[in-house]
Amino acid sequence: MTVKELASLLGGTLQGDGARDIRGVAALEKAGPNHLTFADSERALEHAAASQAGCVLVPETATLGGGATSIAVKHPKLAFVRAVEALCPARKPEPGIHPSAVVAADAALAAEVSVGPNVVIARGAKIGTRTRLDAGVVIGEGTEIGSDCRLYPRVVVYPGSRIGNRVLLHAGVVIGSDGFGYVMAEGRHHKFPQLGQAIIEDDVEIGSNSTVDRGSLGTTIIGQGTKIDNLCQVAHNVTIGRHCVIAAQTGIAGSVEIGNDVVMAGQVGIADHIRIEDNVQIGGHSAIFPGKIVRRGSVVWGSPARPIVDYKKQQACLAQLPKLMDRLKELARRAGNGG
Amino acid sequence: MTVKELASLLGGTLQGDGARDIRGVAALEKAGPNHLTFADSERALEHAAASQAGCVLVPETATLGGGATSIAVKHPKLAFVRAVEALCPARKPEPGIHPSAVVAADAALAAEVSVGPNVVIARGAKIGTRTRLDAGVVIGEGTEIGSDCRLYPRVVVYPGSRIGNRVLLHAGVVIGSDGFGYVMAEGRHHKFPQLGQAIIEDDVEIGSNSTVDRGSLGTTIIGQGTKIDNLCQVAHNVTIGRHCVIAAQTGIAGSVEIGNDVVMAGQVGIADHIRIEDNVQIGGHSAIFPGKIVRRGSVVWGSPARPIVDYKKQQACLAQLPKLMDRLKELARRAGNGG
Amino acid sequence: MTVKELASLLGGTLQGDGARDIRGVAALEKAGPNHLTFADSERALEHAAASQAGCVLVPETATLGGGATSIAVKHPKLAFVRAVEALCPARKPEPGIHPSAVVAADAALAAEVSVGPNVVIARGAKIGTRTRLDAGVVIGEGTEIGSDCRLYPRVVVYPGSRIGNRVLLHAGVVIGSDGFGYVMAEGRHHKFPQLGQAIIEDDVEIGSNSTVDRGSLGTTIIGQGTKIDNLCQVAHNVTIGRHCVIAAQTGIAGSVEIGNDVVMAGQVGIADHIRIEDNVQIGGHSAIFPGKIVRRGSVVWGSPARPIVDYKKQQACLAQLPKLMDRLKELARRAGNGG
Repeated sequence: MTVKELASLLGGTLQGDGARDIRGVAALEKAGPNHLTFADSERALEHAAASQAGCVLVPETATLGGGATSIAVKHPKLAFVRAVEALCPARKPEPGIHPSAVVAADAALAAEVSVGPNVVIARGAKIGTRTRLDAGVVIGEGTEIGSDCRLYPRVVVYPGSRIGNRVLLHAGVVIGSDGFGYVMAEGRHHKFPQLGQAIIEDDVEIGSNSTVDRGSLGTTIIGQGTKIDNLCQVAHNVTIGRHCVIAAQTGIAGSVEIGNDVVMAGQVGIADHIRIEDNVQIGGHSAIFPGKIVRRGSVVWGSPARPIVDYKKQQACLAQLPKLMDRLKELARRAGNGG
Repeated sequence: MTVKELASLLGGTLQGDGARDIRGVAALEKAGPNHLTFADSERALEHAAASQAGCVLVPETATLGGGATSIAVKHPKLAFVRAVEALCPARKPEPGIHPSAVVAADAALAAEVSVGPNVVIARGAKIGTRTRLDAGVVIGEGTEIGSDCRLYPRVVVYPGSRIGNRVLLHAGVVIGSDGFGYVMAEGRHHKFPQLGQAIIEDDVEIGSNSTVDRGSLGTTIIGQGTKIDNLCQVAHNVTIGRHCVIAAQTGIAGSVEIGNDVVMAGQVGIADHIRIEDNVQIGGHSAIFPGKIVRRGSVVWGSPARPIVDYKKQQACLAQLPKLMDRLKELARRAGNGG
Repeated sequence: MTVKELASLLGGTLQGDGARDIRGVAALEKAGPNHLTFADSERALEHAAASQAGCVLVPETATLGGGATSIAVKHPKLAFVRAVEALCPARKPEPGIHPSAVVAADAALAAEVSVGPNVVIARGAKIGTRTRLDAGVVIGEGTEIGSDCRLYPRVVVYPGSRIGNRVLLHAGVVIGSDGFGYVMAEGRHHKFPQLGQAIIEDDVEIGSNSTVDRGSLGTTIIGQGTKIDNLCQVAHNVTIGRHCVIAAQTGIAGSVEIGNDVVMAGQVGIADHIRIEDNVQIGGHSAIFPGKIVRRGSVVWGSPARPIVDYKKQQACLAQLPKLMDRLKELARRAGNGG
């Protein structure tokens, strides 16, 4: 694809040599003469001017010095995503069912479904058009999966789960496993029924080896467009809204309610029954303890998490604490002398 | 089943319409006229009076207003568990070995064992009566598993492990993997032998993608009736007592000794060689650092964890710290002026 | 093997009965008359004198009382590792491809490779000499794996990954899954391309259910001889140096650079783009937040992590904080009275 063709595809303004041949993409520091790259910060733009890149996607407001070839677009990173879709299309597997797969007679597979080796699909499952189940995936009884999904190797979906369209579940993800609930009586823990469902809405992506439990009596829901990183835990009866971003190793305990557009950094812990409203941001390694409501748009950090201004002030004070102690002792000594 | 039959089954006292037909269970807020539910708090009892539920299990001391039908029992939640067992019995798989399973010639499978598709059972393994191995489970050489267990899809049990009766291991659990031990010498880490065993006693349940390492020279033991949530790590040579409850993403380092009836919330970290005595409770996101013994019945929280009273006092002080700083500066200024 | 033969094998100095027959190894407290064990601390040496062990490996400087049989060596624990290799050699599987494995026609398998049941090897993959792939392992297209590796059951390697020699990947490990990167635009998260590679160098060991993402445009690298425990997360574009030791449930965010010989205890969190230089040690449950460089040889602890001296001082101050508050109030009262 030439730079000119790319500019036309992306609806951007070409500057420089439109005839250049672009064959792939690379990060700015590694881009060569046949690579497309992007620069969306002042620092990146400086580097871009000196880069070997065949073409750089830049913001409309920027001018790239040094005779480099560029395409100015509204949103360089988004344009880069689209260019990659055109330049490096994901190879589709040939649809069909691998002979080693074990598919129940009454499972309903739509057109162009791809079922890899050793996949197991239980009774009553429904798989939508063009969905791809990689090697070793296990689909429980009565599960419904939409179209254009990809379940990477060894994903397990427990019976009765519902998965939307364009969902990506990475290797080792478990959907719909039993929640962690017991009744302590007569000196032992009796397992509380885990009869509910796990629902994963459209456009969700979940990272490797993460786990999402089914509802106990209710439902666990991960809302449309939400993205969850590796090794996260979503407990029973949790509701997560739309377009949230939840980084690795975060754990969300039972019956938590999370709004839309919430962002959590890695290793966050949310205790059970917490409510987190829309647009909240939670810093890494934070913990939110029982009984809290985190209000719309708050930015919180720490363990226990508090508004980021307070968190930073507290950290600053903590750093001064040893000196403060010495000073206080001195004051006390003087006061004693003076008294 | 009628309400009257349920009351008789649960040994409770019926109030209201015993002829009602109960076909399923639901949470209090969602229960309809054919649902059984339960109410075991004052707030739940208030809701219950106005609920559409066909029947509500209530404590013996409670009276439910509004003409609702109820059964009074000693322990409503436990009675609910038992009612569910009667109303919604888990469907048993047909016993037998799926033709795609790979079972060693000398593996000993007891009566009514169910072996799913693509299960692998290595030499010398023994599987007890009615135990169910779901799709893709891998049982290592010489492993012994008791009766009435269920290993969900893709559980891996390393060679030589021993698993009791009625054990539930959820999808992706790994039992008996190598502990994390090395000898640093000659500029590199030499793997320390991991020759010991992992033992999971009766009635243990372990959540999805959790890992339990084998002993290095000794044994890792998870005691009878203990429940472990998703994504937990139990390291080599750990001993966990009976009836403990360990929530998600908790990690227990090597050679830790944990007593009976210990409760840990989520994301707790226990450093190696710690001793935690019976009936200890540890708050979420807490860390217990090397060299500690946590005494019988303590309730601890924080990182590092301390008695909950101290933890709360400290948190209160921390919140006041910025003000304290200002005050101190003021005092110092005055003292300086006065001096 | 006799004690005399062992002494000769290990190049150590025999004291006591060289004719004793050693058939296995055990921990010091459990060693019987046919067991080899080791003692490398003063306390262990005291116990060793009274032990039933057939033979004890001791430091060259030590003398074991009580008529016990011992071999004095430079490094008892390392000698023990070597003795175990001789006394308890790991049983090699018979090489060959299990008939249930699904191996692409153009995959290149070197001599003596062992491929277990239900393994899937995609097009263009290369597997080195004597490497062992256990049941259910999935090897993505174009992946290269060196010789003498062992991939335990259900490991998944995404396409295009590169794995060195003598690498051990435990059950459920995922290598090369997509990094967690999105472009927020037009009200939703667009998936950023994850086209890079994951490279695992020689002699790396990774614990059960850990995950290592591929680079987005660049490469994720785990350096030679580094050891990673269970349930760890290594994000996209991370570089980890040689001979690091990273304990369980640690998470390393995107583009972090870690030097050589770094040690991290369990549940550590490293925010994105952090640089950690050689020989750094990080205490358990610590968090390192954005924008930090942790300098060569530092020992840090806490959340946020700080030099261990400061961390300990701060913790000591924190413990005194409630008393300090009371004292301050008293001072303020007096100052008020005096003013």
